[in-house]
Amino acid sequence: MSNLLSGTIDLKFVPQDGGRLARQIYDRLRTAILSGALPRGYRLPSSRGLAEDFGVSRNTVSTVIDQLAVEGYIVVARGRRPVVAAVEKMQLVSADQSPDHERSGFMRVSRWARQVSRSDWHFANEGSPRPFAPGLADAREFPHEVWGRCLRRAARSRHAAGIKANHPALRAALLSHLVEHRGVKADARRLIITSSAQAAIELISRVLLNEGDLAWIESPGYGGARVALEATGARVRGIPLDRSGLRLAGRTERPRLIFCTPSHQYPTGRLMPIKRRQELLAFAAEAGAAIIEDDYDSEFHFDGRPVVALQGIDTAGNVFYVGTFSKPMLPDIRVGYAIVPDGLVETFERMQRHTGQKVMGAMQLALAEFIGDGDFAAHIRRMTRIYRGRRDRLTHALASAAGSRLAITPPAGGMQLLARLEPGSDDCRLVADLAKVGVTARPLSRHFTGKAAEHGLFLGFAAWNETEIDAGAELIGKTIATNLRGR
Amino acid sequence: MSNLLSGTIDLKFVPQDGGRLARQIYDRLRTAILSGALPRGYRLPSSRGLAEDFGVSRNTVSTVIDQLAVEGYIVVARGRRPVVAAVEKMQLVSADQSPDHERSGFMRVSRWARQVSRSDWHFANEGSPRPFAPGLADAREFPHEVWGRCLRRAARSRHAAGIKANHPALRAALLSHLVEHRGVKADARRLIITSSAQAAIELISRVLLNEGDLAWIESPGYGGARVALEATGARVRGIPLDRSGLRLAGRTERPRLIFCTPSHQYPTGRLMPIKRRQELLAFAAEAGAAIIEDDYDSEFHFDGRPVVALQGIDTAGNVFYVGTFSKPMLPDIRVGYAIVPDGLVETFERMQRHTGQKVMGAMQLALAEFIGDGDFAAHIRRMTRIYRGRRDRLTHALASAAGSRLAITPPAGGMQLLARLEPGSDDCRLVADLAKVGVTARPLSRHFTGKAAEHGLFLGFAAWNETEIDAGAELIGKTIATNLRGR
Repeated sequence: MSNLLSGTIDLKFVPQDGGRLARQIYDRLRTAILSGALPRGYRLPSSRGLAEDFGVSRNTVSTVIDQLAVEGYIVVARGRRPVVAAVEKMQLVSADQSPDHERSGFMRVSRWARQVSRSDWHFANEGSPRPFAPGLADAREFPHEVWGRCLRRAARSRHAAGIKANHPALRAALLSHLVEHRGVKADARRLIITSSAQAAIELISRVLLNEGDLAWIESPGYGGARVALEATGARVRGIPLDRSGLRLAGRTERPRLIFCTPSHQYPTGRLMPIKRRQELLAFAAEAGAAIIEDDYDSEFHFDGRPVVALQGIDTAGNVFYVGTFSKPMLPDIRVGYAIVPDGLVETFERMQRHTGQKVMGAMQLALAEFIGDGDFAAHIRRMTRIYRGRRDRLTHALASAAGSRLAITPPAGGMQLLARLEPGSDDCRLVADLAKVGVTARPLSRHFTGKAAEHGLFLGFAAWNETEIDAGAELIGKTIATNLRGR
Repeated sequence: MSNLLSGTIDLKFVPQDGGRLARQIYDRLRTAILSGALPRGYRLPSSRGLAEDFGVSRNTVSTVIDQLAVEGYIVVARGRRPVVAAVEKMQLVSADQSPDHERSGFMRVSRWARQVSRSDWHFANEGSPRPFAPGLADAREFPHEVWGRCLRRAARSRHAAGIKANHPALRAALLSHLVEHRGVKADARRLIITSSAQAAIELISRVLLNEGDLAWIESPGYGGARVALEATGARVRGIPLDRSGLRLAGRTERPRLIFCTPSHQYPTGRLMPIKRRQELLAFAAEAGAAIIEDDYDSEFHFDGRPVVALQGIDTAGNVFYVGTFSKPMLPDIRVGYAIVPDGLVETFERMQRHTGQKVMGAMQLALAEFIGDGDFAAHIRRMTRIYRGRRDRLTHALASAAGSRLAITPPAGGMQLLARLEPGSDDCRLVADLAKVGVTARPLSRHFTGKAAEHGLFLGFAAWNETEIDAGAELIGKTIATNLRGR
């Protein structure tokens, strides 16, 4: 043994395969050079010497020497021993030490990042779903076989990888579904495919709003939209509702963007009647405001057929229509879409490229087939029947478990209902108590932008069967009783 | 027949199922009300009368009347005939007319949207792949069986839907892969899972850059990063390269962000040696600049083992490390990732929620399994051998087909090579000519930010077998010859 390096670096290795040995030797030498243990100008042993030092083959050593030379740690000249190059000494941190913790915590971030950090909407459905998490479809009732076949066929397609961000076949299939079932008016190229409705809302907000612009949102309303609007730096104002939705009378401001849920107001479940729709469109046209119509779960309409989308009666081209597949299909199908004005299609397509947001080609192909074959419409029809039954079941179960303490107007559609609490109640406290007994509910008060005017429980009924609904409702009844006694 | 409505609306229908009939009647009545043909206060026939008029059952008519009442088109009172409500007259556009084309084309957009519209990077791989499209993995050599099993198992998991944007199992598996193979230093919670490397670059740029900030990019460099930086409104400067990469000597500006590809410069394929890496890190620490290290295809290293990432020797916590699965696996696997500083993890997680960017839970589970089982590393090992052979094949084929007209330094790794053209050549014209004969190449000159200093062909060799490589190289040789004669 030459032991030329002994005392400088550790020469003992756990015997492993050649690749790993080379890697260990490389790491040791590299660390020794960076730490200064092997200083600039230091002449390493010959490869024969190194092979002896490390007890490995000369082949392994040669690989390491080549690598170190390529990366500039050593200089190799034919027939001479390698020399350590001019490398600055530096202390390497180990994997479990975060470098310079303090400093990176205070890295200067952009105004946008600060804006994002200031507002949040906590109610994503994460972890194991529990009754009555809103917005969840029932995966047990989903036609996994049919959908799986669409996905497998799409994955085998040689074309999947080359598919654009907005695949023409998906655009066409989805548009004819939306024209038939939601009454939208558009041509297929105005459809932009996104990775969720939230992504669509965020892109639209960013396309329309500058810092300081005024944006309106329903209050109570959808918090996900609020944070997307706020992230642009816009001034976001919550507009109170009356029975017809956004209360427009007496409003003299000129918002740049109005976010609303006319088919099925989130979270109250109310339908915006035609008169208010016309007023809203006229107001927006007059103010030069764009409208985001979030049509999130309007596929499911229990009494009569689904209400026609606001977009379908817009004649000024101001309405951005937003929808999603995660609610009518499965929560993990991360695909949403927007219908945007003709003149902005190219801008949106460019943004999709710039922001690297493209839904997998295979997913787009599979959705096009699922819709085109009629499986999507059939699934919606079937789930509409099931969800209607669950809405009724939950309404009755809550009535018998909590009586007059909860005021419910059964919604005409969708996947959730709102149970209002008596004035003076604290829905956040109640929701926290419910969480302890395994029931998920969202507090109505948290849906307001600005001051909360009402308290209540926002409850999803779609994903739960009769037994689960009854058991959950009973827990709600008991918790309300305890909660009231505790006051 | 009562024919109360005749002359006002068309009463003839294509006989169809009850649902569609109801829909047609609803549409006719609604259109008649909106157009003013049935004016405010008009008393509709009784449901019996309507049923006769339309020749349908009273049941069908009742559904329609209920729907119109819910939406506010008519007012229904018990025992009386329905009355048309106070609705503004409006002209409905048909599906194939885009409303107010002109106006929507000029809808005022945000500064960001204008910025996005100003710059572009056209070289996405769309449509059927042809030799020598860069950045494409060979799908024919992919272990579809193993991956399909991972995906199916993940899709069946009851937990997929509830998985967070950065699934702990994927974070852990990916981190240990990156520590082992790329020499990064981090803890798993600093991994942010995105829908592509481009999405990661865009998010990081947005987190760090305000309008007017200075950002640096290698020139020639990766255009996708350039457009992401430009979209923030930053001043983007292209920094020339020398043999070691970014030429830092004499630079006195203090950029806020530096984008670079140290393991394998894009598009020249050069490795940044340790000395320049240290200079770059020292420069960035001194200037208060963050660094994006795009490690896009560095899994594949042909001579020795892959070069250790710049992130691994960063002691100041300034380096954002970016990678992707679309290159080592398949182009349609739309998953990228970034390692971000500890202090910004929460900001990034919030941004993922705000922008609705979450990779499907099932995809995250499947990747965690594919990596954890060693299939990812095994695939990379196998493809490294194959790609090395293809690099050599293309290098030799081009040498024999185009001789000295193309200057090639075979890259030490990756999926593409750069073939430089003689001074005075026009690579854009040559690329256009190649496209006509079915060969894809990207012009080197288009990779410069600012003035193009060189011309050449950027060619992907990874996705093509020997026959395809030989045929493509021959076409390149012929086209260059013709192209030269044509000058």
